[in-house]
Amino acid sequence: MALFVLKFGGTSVKDIERIKNAASKVAAEAKLGHKIAVVVSAMAGVTDKMIEYCNGISPVHDMREHDAVVSTGEQVTAGLMAMALQQRGLNARSWMGWQIPLCTDSNHNKARITDINAASLRDRIEQGEIAVIAGFQGISEDQSITTLGRGGSDTSAVALAAALKADRCDIYTDVDGVYTTDPRITSKAHKLKRISYDEMLELASLGAKVLQTRSVEMAMRHGVSVQVLSTFTNAIGSEYPGTLVTNEETTMEQRTVTGIAYSLNGAKITLIDVADTPGVAAIIFGALARAGINVDMIVQTSSESGTTSITFTVEKNDLDRSLHILESERPKIKYTNLLADKDIAKISLVGLGMKSNPGIAAKMFETMAEKKINIQAIETSEISISVLISEEYTELAVRALHSAYGLDKS
Amino acid sequence: MALFVLKFGGTSVKDIERIKNAASKVAAEAKLGHKIAVVVSAMAGVTDKMIEYCNGISPVHDMREHDAVVSTGEQVTAGLMAMALQQRGLNARSWMGWQIPLCTDSNHNKARITDINAASLRDRIEQGEIAVIAGFQGISEDQSITTLGRGGSDTSAVALAAALKADRCDIYTDVDGVYTTDPRITSKAHKLKRISYDEMLELASLGAKVLQTRSVEMAMRHGVSVQVLSTFTNAIGSEYPGTLVTNEETTMEQRTVTGIAYSLNGAKITLIDVADTPGVAAIIFGALARAGINVDMIVQTSSESGTTSITFTVEKNDLDRSLHILESERPKIKYTNLLADKDIAKISLVGLGMKSNPGIAAKMFETMAEKKINIQAIETSEISISVLISEEYTELAVRALHSAYGLDKS
Repeated sequence: MALFVLKFGGTSVKDIERIKNAASKVAAEAKLGHKIAVVVSAMAGVTDKMIEYCNGISPVHDMREHDAVVSTGEQVTAGLMAMALQQRGLNARSWMGWQIPLCTDSNHNKARITDINAASLRDRIEQGEIAVIAGFQGISEDQSITTLGRGGSDTSAVALAAALKADRCDIYTDVDGVYTTDPRITSKAHKLKRISYDEMLELASLGAKVLQTRSVEMAMRHGVSVQVLSTFTNAIGSEYPGTLVTNEETTMEQRTVTGIAYSLNGAKITLIDVADTPGVAAIIFGALARAGINVDMIVQTSSESGTTSITFTVEKNDLDRSLHILESERPKIKYTNLLADKDIAKISLVGLGMKSNPGIAAKMFETMAEKKINIQAIETSEISISVLISEEYTELAVRALHSAYGLDKS
Repeated sequence: MALFVLKFGGTSVKDIERIKNAASKVAAEAKLGHKIAVVVSAMAGVTDKMIEYCNGISPVHDMREHDAVVSTGEQVTAGLMAMALQQRGLNARSWMGWQIPLCTDSNHNKARITDINAASLRDRIEQGEIAVIAGFQGISEDQSITTLGRGGSDTSAVALAAALKADRCDIYTDVDGVYTTDPRITSKAHKLKRISYDEMLELASLGAKVLQTRSVEMAMRHGVSVQVLSTFTNAIGSEYPGTLVTNEETTMEQRTVTGIAYSLNGAKITLIDVADTPGVAAIIFGALARAGINVDMIVQTSSESGTTSITFTVEKNDLDRSLHILESERPKIKYTNLLADKDIAKISLVGLGMKSNPGIAAKMFETMAEKKINIQAIETSEISISVLISEEYTELAVRALHSAYGLDKS
């Protein structure tokens, strides 16, 4: 007999029928004798509507009140889900963030969880009651309602699983697991049965959208096994139909590359012939950092003639601001030309096996060369390697790499 | 400088524009230097939608969860109203029932207020902060969200006014005050500047829909002056554009009849020739009471031949059940015939002056006789007299009485 946290996202509780369907999955787990906590998101569209109301009052508004308004979406679903479970003869009740309490800092709209006092929650769950918890919300020290920011319900679920010492956290969503790459790009992509926290974290931060980086980090820190699975099939979590995100040791399969991610969010900036003096990089990236602009891949090249060019990427919607800042800093940076390119893609290989396998990068470059795809920049971490290419080659590159590393399903 | 509670109902906060409009009234009062607490209802239609969701899960559902769901409507408005006030440069914050706390019993969906710990609320209001309170909701001893039932936001407002020792409670609504009778029936109806608690209570319970009986009772018990005024004019409460419900002593005008109410909610039942034995009335009304059926006007007539008939009214939607019960009790009641009539109206005169004015009833009967309206039953209280007539004469009777008692505006 185990204790599970089951989390249902917005599309899984979109309307009354979907809430009933989700309740049937909870009931099936309960029938197997498991103890259960359910974490719910707002019904799809509700949070956006609440944000629209807030912006209707004033585009700039108090985030304390913003949180009081937007947190109602999860409150509604929690009450309805508790009713739906009772309707199936189960003992259930709803819990708002303040009722647990799930304590956070006062950083409204992106609060961080500071403590979960799960004692009475755990007591009731062990007595057989199903706890239905409104995700995304908490309570600050001054007794205000807070919200955890986008994707916050995943974070709520993982944090509660940690606090309750749950055996597993099942994230029911509209995809049925984590794939070797985006199945919309190649039908040869296959679902992974397991993936390590490190790999999931890299995939998430490199563009895969299945889980929020923050919830994976939290799962890793607390050793919570997380399963990503579909809400639209009949299978339930205990049948392990999805992808289990867990620690390295239990990842049985031997593979060098686990998955391929891509991101089209970046824009490339190149500064030609910058002053080759100490501190010039600090001027460039210092100015961007002060404006809150995140810089991703950075490549510096020195030509034989002694000139230096610097290439880096920023988020597409930060491009115009970045160019403006760099132009105003031109007297200090002293570049001869400033180039920008929005049509780029970042393709990343992720895999724990890369740590001990030096040939991985070479094979990637060979594959790109075979397809005549020019590599504009390269970035590596211990378990990933990313290249910047022209956006138009995205699908070609992903498919070629997927085959080259033996990821195509047989 | 005074402390006021301003309450805005569902139509007054129907959408973002109306919320902003309500905020401008609050701002106008604040500009006069007054301390203010605002109580808000859910945006019109929201509570009904939430109830529809609950019924969609199951027509019979847990009222604890029902309250968690339906209370969100007021939470949204409270947050938005606080933002709208801040937008006007005012210091404001929202308060949910549990944050005050506004304590109630555990009678979900119709909870009664047991205590309001208004200390910190009052502190902040006195420091110049405007408190925006979600109406209709409270918290029970076991920390569950409760709601106060239909019209609960009026009750919240009056209870808070009492707890805060407020100087006045302004109820902004879609009518501009209490009228001598329904202005849709006669254009000669005029708005009352003042009315006593007792009269308001009688009018409300006899069919006038301006204020909920429960909130008037609470205002009377705690001596809270309540003003009913329109949200759709530019006037604010401190200009006294509405009707002030207050204690008898301050009702300056001398009048015998203050207002005329009517109700079409009743249905008449007549039992012909019941057994003239002690206890027969107890059998009839005991059986109805056990079924939760409220009985209104009761008239018993004895004929010279020694037979007795009993006439009374019940709510229209209780009629079928009532008839069914009376038929099954026929062996005990021993009536010869059972008659029912849905097409009846109850017309009531209300006025403190009736206490010391014996001619009032006679004039009512004369007026009815002049118009050839048959009176089917009569009921009196210290400050009211009601007659039961055929529904088709409703408007004729109201207009005739309105003129006869000098209520027509000049």
